[in-house]
Amino acid sequence: MKYTIFGESHGSEIGVVLTGVPAGIALDWGFILSEMARRAPGQSALSTARKEADTPEVVSGVFEGKTTGAPLCAIIQNTDTRSRDYEELRRKPRPSHADYAAFVASGGFRDYRGGGHFSGRLTAPLVFAGAVAKQVLKPRGITVSARISMLGGVKDPSQSQIEDIVLSAKQAGDSVGGTIVCAVEGMPAGLGAPDFGCNVEGIFSQYLFAVPAVKGVAFGAGFALASMRGSEANDPFYMDGDTVKTRTNHAGGVNGGITNGMPITFEAVLRPTTSIYKEQDTVDLDTMEDAKLIIHGRHDPCIVTRAVVVIEAAAALASCEVLEGGRSPL
Amino acid sequence: MKYTIFGESHGSEIGVVLTGVPAGIALDWGFILSEMARRAPGQSALSTARKEADTPEVVSGVFEGKTTGAPLCAIIQNTDTRSRDYEELRRKPRPSHADYAAFVASGGFRDYRGGGHFSGRLTAPLVFAGAVAKQVLKPRGITVSARISMLGGVKDPSQSQIEDIVLSAKQAGDSVGGTIVCAVEGMPAGLGAPDFGCNVEGIFSQYLFAVPAVKGVAFGAGFALASMRGSEANDPFYMDGDTVKTRTNHAGGVNGGITNGMPITFEAVLRPTTSIYKEQDTVDLDTMEDAKLIIHGRHDPCIVTRAVVVIEAAAALASCEVLEGGRSPL
Amino acid sequence: MKYTIFGESHGSEIGVVLTGVPAGIALDWGFILSEMARRAPGQSALSTARKEADTPEVVSGVFEGKTTGAPLCAIIQNTDTRSRDYEELRRKPRPSHADYAAFVASGGFRDYRGGGHFSGRLTAPLVFAGAVAKQVLKPRGITVSARISMLGGVKDPSQSQIEDIVLSAKQAGDSVGGTIVCAVEGMPAGLGAPDFGCNVEGIFSQYLFAVPAVKGVAFGAGFALASMRGSEANDPFYMDGDTVKTRTNHAGGVNGGITNGMPITFEAVLRPTTSIYKEQDTVDLDTMEDAKLIIHGRHDPCIVTRAVVVIEAAAALASCEVLEGGRSPL
Amino acid sequence: MKYTIFGESHGSEIGVVLTGVPAGIALDWGFILSEMARRAPGQSALSTARKEADTPEVVSGVFEGKTTGAPLCAIIQNTDTRSRDYEELRRKPRPSHADYAAFVASGGFRDYRGGGHFSGRLTAPLVFAGAVAKQVLKPRGITVSARISMLGGVKDPSQSQIEDIVLSAKQAGDSVGGTIVCAVEGMPAGLGAPDFGCNVEGIFSQYLFAVPAVKGVAFGAGFALASMRGSEANDPFYMDGDTVKTRTNHAGGVNGGITNGMPITFEAVLRPTTSIYKEQDTVDLDTMEDAKLIIHGRHDPCIVTRAVVVIEAAAALASCEVLEGGRSPL
Repeated sequence: MKYTIFGESHGSEIGVVLTGVPAGIALDWGFILSEMARRAPGQSALSTARKEADTPEVVSGVFEGKTTGAPLCAIIQNTDTRSRDYEELRRKPRPSHADYAAFVASGGFRDYRGGGHFSGRLTAPLVFAGAVAKQVLKPRGITVSARISMLGGVKDPSQSQIEDIVLSAKQAGDSVGGTIVCAVEGMPAGLGAPDFGCNVEGIFSQYLFAVPAVKGVAFGAGFALASMRGSEANDPFYMDGDTVKTRTNHAGGVNGGITNGMPITFEAVLRPTTSIYKEQDTVDLDTMEDAKLIIHGRHDPCIVTRAVVVIEAAAALASCEVLEGGRSPL
Repeated sequence: MKYTIFGESHGSEIGVVLTGVPAGIALDWGFILSEMARRAPGQSALSTARKEADTPEVVSGVFEGKTTGAPLCAIIQNTDTRSRDYEELRRKPRPSHADYAAFVASGGFRDYRGGGHFSGRLTAPLVFAGAVAKQVLKPRGITVSARISMLGGVKDPSQSQIEDIVLSAKQAGDSVGGTIVCAVEGMPAGLGAPDFGCNVEGIFSQYLFAVPAVKGVAFGAGFALASMRGSEANDPFYMDGDTVKTRTNHAGGVNGGITNGMPITFEAVLRPTTSIYKEQDTVDLDTMEDAKLIIHGRHDPCIVTRAVVVIEAAAALASCEVLEGGRSPL
Repeated sequence: MKYTIFGESHGSEIGVVLTGVPAGIALDWGFILSEMARRAPGQSALSTARKEADTPEVVSGVFEGKTTGAPLCAIIQNTDTRSRDYEELRRKPRPSHADYAAFVASGGFRDYRGGGHFSGRLTAPLVFAGAVAKQVLKPRGITVSARISMLGGVKDPSQSQIEDIVLSAKQAGDSVGGTIVCAVEGMPAGLGAPDFGCNVEGIFSQYLFAVPAVKGVAFGAGFALASMRGSEANDPFYMDGDTVKTRTNHAGGVNGGITNGMPITFEAVLRPTTSIYKEQDTVDLDTMEDAKLIIHGRHDPCIVTRAVVVIEAAAALASCEVLEGGRSPL
Repeated sequence: MKYTIFGESHGSEIGVVLTGVPAGIALDWGFILSEMARRAPGQSALSTARKEADTPEVVSGVFEGKTTGAPLCAIIQNTDTRSRDYEELRRKPRPSHADYAAFVASGGFRDYRGGGHFSGRLTAPLVFAGAVAKQVLKPRGITVSARISMLGGVKDPSQSQIEDIVLSAKQAGDSVGGTIVCAVEGMPAGLGAPDFGCNVEGIFSQYLFAVPAVKGVAFGAGFALASMRGSEANDPFYMDGDTVKTRTNHAGGVNGGITNGMPITFEAVLRPTTSIYKEQDTVDLDTMEDAKLIIHGRHDPCIVTRAVVVIEAAAALASCEVLEGGRSPL
């Protein structure tokens, strides 16, 4: 099961093609729409004012409500685009956004309106893909759940803390970053391999780093392992009935690149939204001189809240790949 | 350029096959051997007592001292193997080592001697591959350098602190973890893409998580981004002569999955060595009952010191892949 | 540059996503539409009565008329679908069509209307992809051209022979197969490798066998090589000015899996259309008993004529992959 | 299960690394050696005078006689190399051999001794890999068998005809080509997909074109389909007890890129050996002028006889990939 996302922030539509979807899955539309809603913009003062219905339309790969195994394409219309906001950005790359890198990569032929193909809006099709992946995992008893573990420097923030942090940044014309922890429960032991391209952490990280704004991924105890001794970090085995388990899970469910039957746990860090309203230093790509930039338009002061379901989507897709790679494939 | 590592800790030989190596590179054997020496065991009280010459023999892909573009296979003999140390480990998996996961993955048919294919010894061929990759990068002005950024909880430790930390853990029959920072300098801007499978962070992370003991990877300011505001985290652009640069590099040289011309910087966390000499709880896979385990044999109390060159190797191989993917390939 | 085709014969729309398209290509719409027209149905008595406008709409990856390097998605509406014709085919697989194989592969959840995802209609997005690929190749001086080399047993048929052969089969309620020869001219020497996954013939064949109805692919003199001696089959080298050429091209421009600078030539065989109007033996998948089948609906008595541009499309896409793999990529 | 072959005709050793081998297979060494013997040179007047023991040594991935799932590397020593025969070939490429293409691809840094990495000798590790693949297929009831279907223009030649044809060519200092037919029996229905990269014919052809000298591959009735009508070419279904079968197998066991449960059958054409003893026209790569060449050294007048087991090996490896891709992977 592989996904390819297409589209631009200000194009007519965006979408995703999923290949390798198992046949016979009865797609639960209520669930898909509720997942889309978890990411959708324009719902509160916490997020961008842009409003999109974000209702995916499946145009292939589903027949009489069930997947057929053929490539599944879902399309989402772009409706609330305001291209006039972005003219200055053609020549002045926004600091830490993809503008300059994309300018070089495309030889100057990028779509600069609203971030083009680099827009966070492209995570909408990713959430759709994740919702399908979760329905592939569900009958196998595998669940994926994530939550915010840090926001603006505050660990495990409450909902009211989250609102304070985001609104405070918004009032300052600034933005905040954070971390999200995620657990995949129910994965059988013995999946993966230590080798390049097959190890579970490598597979997960490739999906996670494809999520815009993710700059770090760590499994189990993560970077805290640098301050632990082996006697603390090691997860002792014990028998729980007939099942081998570990008393702690500092390894995040993966030993030697292979699942050990414990939940796969990881933390991802998301950078603060790059689009802020303060004046910033940049360059003018037409004159190749230093320049000043004030970004207008509509932007989230914090994408971490909306990204929780996106991280789950990436983890669900990664879990499907790990399951497919499987154990002694023949 | 792809690598495949083969071999087991107690087999007759281990090795690597590199495919996609550019033709015409005059391999610098002095350099290759010096890289191997940076990882080699048995050099001081800090590392395992196992001694290996670790001299790779190239058996294909090189003609008259230069690469031909054909698959390049290098073989390293295993000489100092002591299989008798590992008999108990067949049934008692070492906590947090790959033993149990490999047992399940292989249906019980793993090579349990000294970690088998999961042994840290398999990083020797990886260092060889990295040494070749560095010679591919060098004529393009690209360098890779890493150093220990934390050990046993101490940030940026001095050499004498490193020795204290490791020996103290060794005397306690314990082990320590740490972090390594790495910078790839000289990569041109505009390489990579935001999409799954093409983004620079995803490519690097896949190589890094294939290094045993790596449990986390973060680019630029990494997890500190969770406590930063956008106005701090953003890297302002400026003109340095004709070149677009950024004043800070919190993004680690990558925006939107594409290189921006600044050094690619990342930090990786390595867990403490799983093999410690203290008694640990485990299970007996024959009787499926709880059990106690005391590990004998020869083990590093800390692999972070020897892993610096391994992380560089992974980064060098990843850099080659990013270069190949390139910019508008046609 | 990779393509993924999605859609079903009787869905709302079909399409293709192209990834890895170089940025900055000004798409020539006149050319694209003329290529689509070469494949379009309903143009004469020779082909199916189904009529489709077959005008692709590009929804991503193009900005101000030029490619951006982002995934390029093109969509074609299905307009003239008549689902009522296909009810009996749910339980009676058509001989030599994909019906039965797809029934098993999908666990019974296939879209059986008009061949579903297996329909020859899915070659329309392939022709679009090929038209883009040809525009990638054109500035590099590479051209792709194909023609019918056999039809219904007649070698190198004239246009009037083609009409006779097809109409004669049509009147008999039958169908005919044929072969198509294709040449890719202008490919530089030195591309490809002998190894699995890299050799030029292997790359081309993977694209060609993805074209429905193709059952064989042979390069250069092809199967005639089985009756030749080395002294006949070998292509002698000579100098044409500064360029090394061969006097004959029995190898089809490829030696040892690598281009030699001569045109890449191959022949593909396409089976007769599987949908014929004669009564055929089949089975009933509901009762698992022998059954008879008479196919109704609209079908080409010969797809070879419309497939010429499809074979060119596959060859153009393969040529792009060979170019990308290239020669000493770093 | 993927293979990577390394080595050169005149290097110290050649070999193969197999990844993705299922764990727990007890390798049958008698069988492996008998397969190697079917390909080995120097056994009769029909083949090259070069003699090699061709005994593979497994250096990884096997423990106590069984596969572990870790990469399996097998090495074969080169013993009977005579490098002095090849000096002239450095500058004069042999017609239709890979010499010139490899010269360009490698920028002149190829190993020109005995064909280097392009030598037919590299099919020895491929036969080893095929022997492992056959042992993966055997417990699933899948067998692979091939035979010569044409040699030097003679269809289905008897053993004495084969000897006549080859010796006659040898006496003339010439060589002959031929075709090999192969059947894979026991493959379940429903494997594969119509899409690029997944279809059964495409997968098989990629393995087959990686065999040196193969220039064409056709499934089922192959190129004869160009002279057939649909009513002849279609394979009628019928019930054989509980099993759906077809009365004929002109489709070679594949419909729409998916197995239909009938044997997968194909024919491959192998060009005449390029190394002949007659004087040939070539060019001198040092002076870039026309030149004459008389090839010395030891060469098979016909490789078709020794290639039968090589084609089986490629088909066995392809069958493993088709099985792994499988049907609804989750």
